[in-house]
Formats: sequence, C-alpha cells, structure tokens
Amino acid sequence: MSCVFCAIVAGEAPAIRIYEDDDYLALLDIRPFTRGHTLVIPKQHTVDLTDTPPETVAAMVRIGQRIARAARISGLHADGNNVVINDGKAAFQTVFHIHLHVLPRRNGDKLSFAKNMLLRRDPDREESGRLLREALAQLDSAAQD
Amino acid sequence: MSCVFCAIVAGEAPAIRIYEDDDYLALLDIRPFTRGHTLVIPKQHTVDLTDTPPETVAAMVRIGQRIARAARISGLHADGNNVVINDGKAAFQTVFHIHLHVLPRRNGDKLSFAKNMLLRRDPDREESGRLLREALAQLDSAAQD
Repeated sequence: MSCVFCAIVAGEAPAIRIYEDDDYLALLDIRPFTRGHTLVIPKQHTVDLTDTPPETVAAMVRIGQRIARAARISGLHADGNNVVINDGKAAFQTVFHIHLHVLPRRNGDKLSFAKNMLLRRDPDREESGRLLREALAQLDSAAQD
Repeated sequence: MSCVFCAIVAGEAPAIRIYEDDDYLALLDIRPFTRGHTLVIPKQHTVDLTDTPPETVAAMVRIGQRIARAARISGLHADGNNVVINDGKAAFQTVFHIHLHVLPRRNGDKLSFAKNMLLRRDPDREESGRLLREALAQLDSAAQD
C-alpha cells in the first residue's frame, strides 16, 4: 500500500490514535511541530482540496475544532492552536492523502516552535496522546451533563 | 466600533471583498503573506474556536475551500493553498474576530513567501481581488452547467 495514511487506516501501519469514528481518524503526527500535533484524516483516500468533497472537509474541521478545544483543557495546557490544511505540494503538503493539522500552542512558545520545526520530535508521544484522549473524553462527558 | 472586522461587515471600514452572503464575508488581508491572501469571516462576532459554533467553522471552511479552488484556476495561478485558523494569541491570532486564512501558493515560492511574511504587501490588491472574484464566478458557472 503506497499511501501511509491508508495503511494506518487499514491497521497495517502503527499510529497513536486520538479519535476515531466510521469515517475519520485523528492521530499524532510522527514529526510534530509542537506537543500534541495531531492530524485529522478521512478514511477514504482523497488528495487535497481539489478532489475532497466539501462535506468531508467540513467534517474534518469539526473534529479538528474539538481537538483544539480538548488541547486547551488537557494536560498539554494549550493556550491556542493552529489549525491548518496544506493544500498541494506548493503549500508544503508532503503526504498526498488530505489531512488537517491541529498544533497546540503555548503562550510564548515562538522560539521553541521555530526550533521544533527543525527537530520535530516529542519526548513522550504516548503521554501526549493519552492527555488529548483524556481531554476529549472530558469534553464528551461535559456535553452529556 | 472596536472590532475592525465588525466595522468592515457594517460597511464602516473599507475592504476588498471577494465573496459575500448573508452570514459570511471573504476579503483580502491588508497585510498579505502571498498575493490573494484572503480572510473568511462570519458576520456575527465570535472570538476563536472556543466560542464559535461548529457549524459556523464548517461553513467558513467550505467557503475557504471554494476560494482555494478558485485561486488555482485564477489569474493568480496558484499551485496550492494554505488554509489556516489561528486560534488564540498563542497561535498568532491578532484580530479577535475569528477568521480563516486562505493563502494561495506557487511552486517554488518558499523564499518569496518568507520575505512576504516580513513585507506583507501586494503591489496590486485591486487586481488580486478582481482575479479571485472572476475565478469564483467561473466555478459558479461551471457548477451550473
């Protein structure tokens, strides 16, 4: 299978999963710009904004917004988030299965953000994944109250 | 009126408008990172991803996707686009009325992109606006065929 995201969807490649439903999957980026850097992907393969149905893009961003909210209340203590779709190689897209980035940000993290754009590692990915999943569950239970 | 986007919506501040409907407005960023750098805003004021209804964010991204597609077929000749929501001051949000950025990109524009992050000017904004509106109209008429 030539698409790494399709391989992850099929369970043939590993990933730290943050969220999953029938049609979408959210996983940690293996080369994160910030702690908790998450990708939201549709399970069905499309390439970019030119071939992805608008309802799919809208669903991706709904999940991304939820993860952004979770990042703020999570143990990652995000003060904000960059939510980004890189549409095309010219726009820094590197995996040609559409994905939405959620980058949790902290106040005053500009320098470490710049550094991490080069380093792109998380010293404890498992823990970052756990903290985001926990915060999503917390949002869910708050919505049910 | 203290919010510049609310002032634009109310017609009390100038803007080069790319798209408008009852609830949303798309306008050129006055300090563009790239030619055609567009902002999609809801007319109703909310601040960021924490207080903006998910359906509003979804609608913003649908319009943004359409503008991204238009940029590719437009006279701006975009090869791709960055579509970005900066959620919170920590994430470089500077106007606290939620907005979605669409940044048309060209193959090999990395250096001029970096330069323009400092310069942030477009030598012919009116023309950039015209080219995007023209391409959106072209998409509309193709959809009606």
